[in-house]
Amino acid sequence: MATGSDKFPTMHPVKGFQLGTASAGIKTAGRQDLVLLEMAEGSTVAGVFTQNRFCAAPVIVAKRHLQAMVPRYMLINTGNANAGTGEQGVADALKCCRGVADAVNAEPKQILPFSTGVIGEPLPVDRLLSAIPSAIDNLSEQGWAEAAKGILTTDTRPKGASLKFDVNDTQVTITGISKGSGMIKPNMATMLGFIATDAAVNDELLHRAVRLATEKSFNRITVDSDTSTNDSVMLVATGTSGVEIDENTFEQFLAQLTEVFSALAQAIIRDGEGANKFVSVVVESALDTQEALDIAYTIAESPLVKTALTASDPNWGRILAAIGRSGVEDLDVSKVQLSLNSVLIAENGGRAASYTEAQGQKAMQPEDIEIRVALNRGQATETVWTTDLSYEYVRINAEYRT
Amino acid sequence: MATGSDKFPTMHPVKGFQLGTASAGIKTAGRQDLVLLEMAEGSTVAGVFTQNRFCAAPVIVAKRHLQAMVPRYMLINTGNANAGTGEQGVADALKCCRGVADAVNAEPKQILPFSTGVIGEPLPVDRLLSAIPSAIDNLSEQGWAEAAKGILTTDTRPKGASLKFDVNDTQVTITGISKGSGMIKPNMATMLGFIATDAAVNDELLHRAVRLATEKSFNRITVDSDTSTNDSVMLVATGTSGVEIDENTFEQFLAQLTEVFSALAQAIIRDGEGANKFVSVVVESALDTQEALDIAYTIAESPLVKTALTASDPNWGRILAAIGRSGVEDLDVSKVQLSLNSVLIAENGGRAASYTEAQGQKAMQPEDIEIRVALNRGQATETVWTTDLSYEYVRINAEYRT
Repeated sequence: MATGSDKFPTMHPVKGFQLGTASAGIKTAGRQDLVLLEMAEGSTVAGVFTQNRFCAAPVIVAKRHLQAMVPRYMLINTGNANAGTGEQGVADALKCCRGVADAVNAEPKQILPFSTGVIGEPLPVDRLLSAIPSAIDNLSEQGWAEAAKGILTTDTRPKGASLKFDVNDTQVTITGISKGSGMIKPNMATMLGFIATDAAVNDELLHRAVRLATEKSFNRITVDSDTSTNDSVMLVATGTSGVEIDENTFEQFLAQLTEVFSALAQAIIRDGEGANKFVSVVVESALDTQEALDIAYTIAESPLVKTALTASDPNWGRILAAIGRSGVEDLDVSKVQLSLNSVLIAENGGRAASYTEAQGQKAMQPEDIEIRVALNRGQATETVWTTDLSYEYVRINAEYRT
Repeated sequence: MATGSDKFPTMHPVKGFQLGTASAGIKTAGRQDLVLLEMAEGSTVAGVFTQNRFCAAPVIVAKRHLQAMVPRYMLINTGNANAGTGEQGVADALKCCRGVADAVNAEPKQILPFSTGVIGEPLPVDRLLSAIPSAIDNLSEQGWAEAAKGILTTDTRPKGASLKFDVNDTQVTITGISKGSGMIKPNMATMLGFIATDAAVNDELLHRAVRLATEKSFNRITVDSDTSTNDSVMLVATGTSGVEIDENTFEQFLAQLTEVFSALAQAIIRDGEGANKFVSVVVESALDTQEALDIAYTIAESPLVKTALTASDPNWGRILAAIGRSGVEDLDVSKVQLSLNSVLIAENGGRAASYTEAQGQKAMQPEDIEIRVALNRGQATETVWTTDLSYEYVRINAEYRT
């Protein structure tokens, strides 16, 4: 199950950024499960990584390498997360970096490794190494669609976003891919996202951009409240458009970048495990960002709210109960207003006088649902995106790995 | 579904504490859905209530009445929570108190109201009022088993606990009932619990006892992380045994009381919605209680851990991932040890050298599962009880109310 359109968008190539996909047979024979990304000399690279303390071996290595040198290649495998693998996992990730470095005549520290898949199994390093030459042969600026498929796990569809815009009359491109469907509550980053632009962006601005755009996109989604061990988002600026982003054009660039990030983040939610609904939880007129997020996440992660969503049941009492337990101090419940797809459901601590059950039933029918909560005590507004909790979610996660 | 034995225990009567059950037809015609509890003059009463900001109307009224006078009666209905009902809900709860007061010649403030069931529907006050005389007629010290049934909602079995012990050679009895199956993550109290003792306990000691016993029992369970709007636990001491609890005998009394509270709390988890497993999450050698609880609850509430439990799958990577995202500062993951039903699964940041998949499969087969996490950095140990997340949980909560 998944929500929304499964049409894959047109992916505008980014000059100086090549993608090559190959089959390493990591979990399934014949599956395209290895992706190599090459960045032209002179590119800048910035990333954000999972905050999970049990972060995976490739995350440890990628963070170290990113600090040591400007990377030239990123190697991504699916089918095995190389997480919960201790010291051996780190050694295995380094072997893969060395494999790429030897083949392209680079330093191992110029290679960043990424893995996704089952946790706790040793990485089949030899299989990865033997597929690297084929990934190198396939490197192409046209390789986005293949790469988008090559990084999937329980996802049911590839996820991409791409746009062009003008900066001072010169065209700039931003194109990216992501994957993720379960174990989704990114904290600083989502499962995997790779985004490239042909703008020139210096290190400081690129880091600021990836942090700010992630904050409003990948850090605003949750499928099941489980932050992964492998989350990483990488942003590459090749500079090949000839446009240099500076303080004057940064806001324009950030707005476009956030649009691409949001499209990729929302695509993960539309393809959330067992998803029948795409749910936006909007908390407005809050005192500050933190309390808006606390309430939005408490609603978005409530199993009772999520099972009501799967049944298209306007069971608004469960939403009030979630608001009430979200830990916000001194909340005046008599001021809270709740609406579902623009139908006012509750106010003054109870059901709205104008509300009828028939209205609620109708409001819950669409695939896209907006839960809007007005606290009427401040100026902050935040939005979090989530899915329902279905039989299918339980089936996928009870059967996966067994 | 439910776990463990469904045998209802022998309930020792508590002299001076009577229970009467009647049928008000609140949600289902003919169902015994109204329970009246009478406390002898001279009893002391202490309670703890939900911390949910959207607390239900009866909770608001019960807290007010408890401060105003020593209560003589408690009135409990199932089928309607009288929550999310605003000012009308409070007025309705007061009408029910007045109904009891008029019939027994007491003050309305001597009556405490409790409700459980669907949120957001107006309370059918007339039906409650018309059943009160029948509940009064049925008042009896033998009424525990009927009352245990009369307070259930989605529960599949009644829950009771009862014991006798000697204080300075005189016998004291503690007997109690509880209900709850979903929307279970009590905060200061669980859905509903009513416990009586024939010891004499003064107000100060009784409040201390209910708070301490709740902290180690009802405040250590979670089915779905959803704190209810109606949680209440009430403890009554009738004093009819002639034994007075003082500072010298308080620890002995508290230990016995905690045993009854724990039995009632664990009975709720064994009857958790869709439960196939009874899971104890033990976090030991933590720096302090808070970090032990943070990790225990993150594991106990992880949908991925809970779906692995329903499949009896030793998917320990999900448990490590939950530990890693639990927000504990400076956790050294290389020191963490994880075992399932005494089988050491992970240490040194990865799979234990001694571990085999066959061991893990075998460890996960029993209905009762212990997940034990040693942090090896302090002295604190805490235990939280929970269930798996099954298809049946989704079915119950998608279909309930629709």
